[in-house]
Amino acid sequence: MIKIDKPTLIVNKNIARRNIKLMAKKASDNGLVLTPHFKTHQSKEIGRWFREETIETITVSSVSMAEYFAEDSWKHITIAFPVNILEIHKIANLATIVDLTLLVTDKEQIKVLLQEVDVYVNILIEIDTGSKRSGLNPANGKLISEMIDSLSSTQHHFKGFYSHFGHTYNAASRVEVESIYRESLNIMKDLKHTHAYAKPTISIGDTPSCSIINDFAEVKSIHAGNFVFYDLTQAQIGSCKEEDIAIALACPVVSKNAERNEIIIYGGGVHLSKESLLDNETKTSIFGKIVTFSEHGWSRSIPGCYVRSISQEHGVVKLTAEAFHKIKIGDVIGVLPVHSCMTADVMCGYVDLSGDSVDHLKAHWAV
Amino acid sequence: MIKIDKPTLIVNKNIARRNIKLMAKKASDNGLVLTPHFKTHQSKEIGRWFREETIETITVSSVSMAEYFAEDSWKHITIAFPVNILEIHKIANLATIVDLTLLVTDKEQIKVLLQEVDVYVNILIEIDTGSKRSGLNPANGKLISEMIDSLSSTQHHFKGFYSHFGHTYNAASRVEVESIYRESLNIMKDLKHTHAYAKPTISIGDTPSCSIINDFAEVKSIHAGNFVFYDLTQAQIGSCKEEDIAIALACPVVSKNAERNEIIIYGGGVHLSKESLLDNETKTSIFGKIVTFSEHGWSRSIPGCYVRSISQEHGVVKLTAEAFHKIKIGDVIGVLPVHSCMTADVMCGYVDLSGDSVDHLKAHWAV
Repeated sequence: MIKIDKPTLIVNKNIARRNIKLMAKKASDNGLVLTPHFKTHQSKEIGRWFREETIETITVSSVSMAEYFAEDSWKHITIAFPVNILEIHKIANLATIVDLTLLVTDKEQIKVLLQEVDVYVNILIEIDTGSKRSGLNPANGKLISEMIDSLSSTQHHFKGFYSHFGHTYNAASRVEVESIYRESLNIMKDLKHTHAYAKPTISIGDTPSCSIINDFAEVKSIHAGNFVFYDLTQAQIGSCKEEDIAIALACPVVSKNAERNEIIIYGGGVHLSKESLLDNETKTSIFGKIVTFSEHGWSRSIPGCYVRSISQEHGVVKLTAEAFHKIKIGDVIGVLPVHSCMTADVMCGYVDLSGDSVDHLKAHWAV
Repeated sequence: MIKIDKPTLIVNKNIARRNIKLMAKKASDNGLVLTPHFKTHQSKEIGRWFREETIETITVSSVSMAEYFAEDSWKHITIAFPVNILEIHKIANLATIVDLTLLVTDKEQIKVLLQEVDVYVNILIEIDTGSKRSGLNPANGKLISEMIDSLSSTQHHFKGFYSHFGHTYNAASRVEVESIYRESLNIMKDLKHTHAYAKPTISIGDTPSCSIINDFAEVKSIHAGNFVFYDLTQAQIGSCKEEDIAIALACPVVSKNAERNEIIIYGGGVHLSKESLLDNETKTSIFGKIVTFSEHGWSRSIPGCYVRSISQEHGVVKLTAEAFHKIKIGDVIGVLPVHSCMTADVMCGYVDLSGDSVDHLKAHWAV
């Protein structure tokens, strides 16, 4: 185990690369274009691991992130977020250097794209199949037709429909994910057929569907991102096994409380994020599960041990009596994250098992 | 209003300085040493606003943060986190340049401090008066005595007892805060009297107590931090009024959903953090309340308008019908944060109302 003295996000490259390889194979076997969402890792180096699997198209969630990956020679970028018209000049500039795909949810965005962006971009209309986030209600057929029509004979290209089936994240089982997926995909297929004249494609995004489903009929591209690392939420849904989780937060043990079989770790909300999970095993709300490190990675999570509460820098970890007696002040334990995208974002960087740094977009932020 | 095109954390300098001034006056009026916790803002520039109120002693939550503020000439620093023995060499180095105060919760930490840190440090024993985070059970009198005794005639100085009455954050009212404060303070006073031979002082930390209480008999120093910005959680507890909140996240409006009177803003969990609040006004779990900006600041929050859900970059904002019709795609709205420490941490920096940048420790992180 490398030397750690403060919270450090460890990425297990072998696991991450295996996750990438498996999703790339699944896409290839099903004739899908894998357009992985890079919002999870936000890292040029990890992006290159995808490139080695011959991935050429990527997804990001902001214009800033698109600019960051364009710097690393990515040429086909989807910004899977409704067009922010306040950034239209940055978008116009990006369109001159990459093949850009944008999401629209309103006529206003199309109007601005037609006025302000001369170089062509691809446009996906975002559809809400039930997640109640962004996207148009699919019942709104007239508006959708008008939006498609407003793009014909313009500099831009209507590419099809995009939907993030985000309600799969609340699914309690693989069976429930399958049911949400089928219902949502049926909505997307209906739209495709209704607007067949415009030759729309279907793009979908969520990691649970992309991980669990094996029948992608009529889907053109998949934009999942979380699968590169997975996390406890995905393991509980059934998208992965716990041993597929590719990041763990290494945390110093700073204090022990024998009365409560609890330890205090240096590792809090600014390291893990404040995202919690109602855990099936312990039937309680947790902020992470506990692993121990070895030279080559980390153990499976220790049953009955979890991060019970967090404040800014403190993590309060509930242990079994047995685990409590083994752990000493000054040890370093690992925490599997509830939501890897958020943990990676607050940590602003990684180290691999050899101790080498791996970049993150936010480490390059400056005020 | 300054030009905004993506989520930007705005600090209203006038409000923050007023909050600092009021707390400094309260401390002075009560003969207390104000040792403000800088974990909230993590900013050298904002630190200087405290210095202008003649504050000389500060509190931080990590060795890294102590190093950051030591660079800006702060000479009296308390690290309000149990000593992390893995960073003992950094601590020893810091002790050569600043007057350092450390928290201990275990004999092991004292042993390492005696062995590895030659230059004197001040030591506070952390007590848990009921928040169930770190700190010793005050009933553990024998252990506390042994810890105090182990410091006598050493290079280090036993300074007294420290407690963060963190359970005040769950209080539903000012009256409840007062009751928790009195109960906790009684525990601290008993300890002080029991160990009077060692001349212990009492240090306390939480923003609700420091904001609401007016009788600090026997308390020596107060270490609150959140009061510089306050937030919706503090306003709901009664620590402040909403107009005392000194930061707001400026967010572009990217999409509108007329069926639900909701808008999508560019502003999600990586901008606000995932911390939520069970709001007394709307009786629902919220991630922020909505304000509008003007040249000189922002409005009071608009009743019935709040951030209903967030994902990585999306915020879904519930509006009243009236507010919905006024807001257009491309507008910039403000979000008052649920927990300002966490929002400042994920944003890694601020701009003031004139558009000037204000630093944050995390903007200097590099992997």
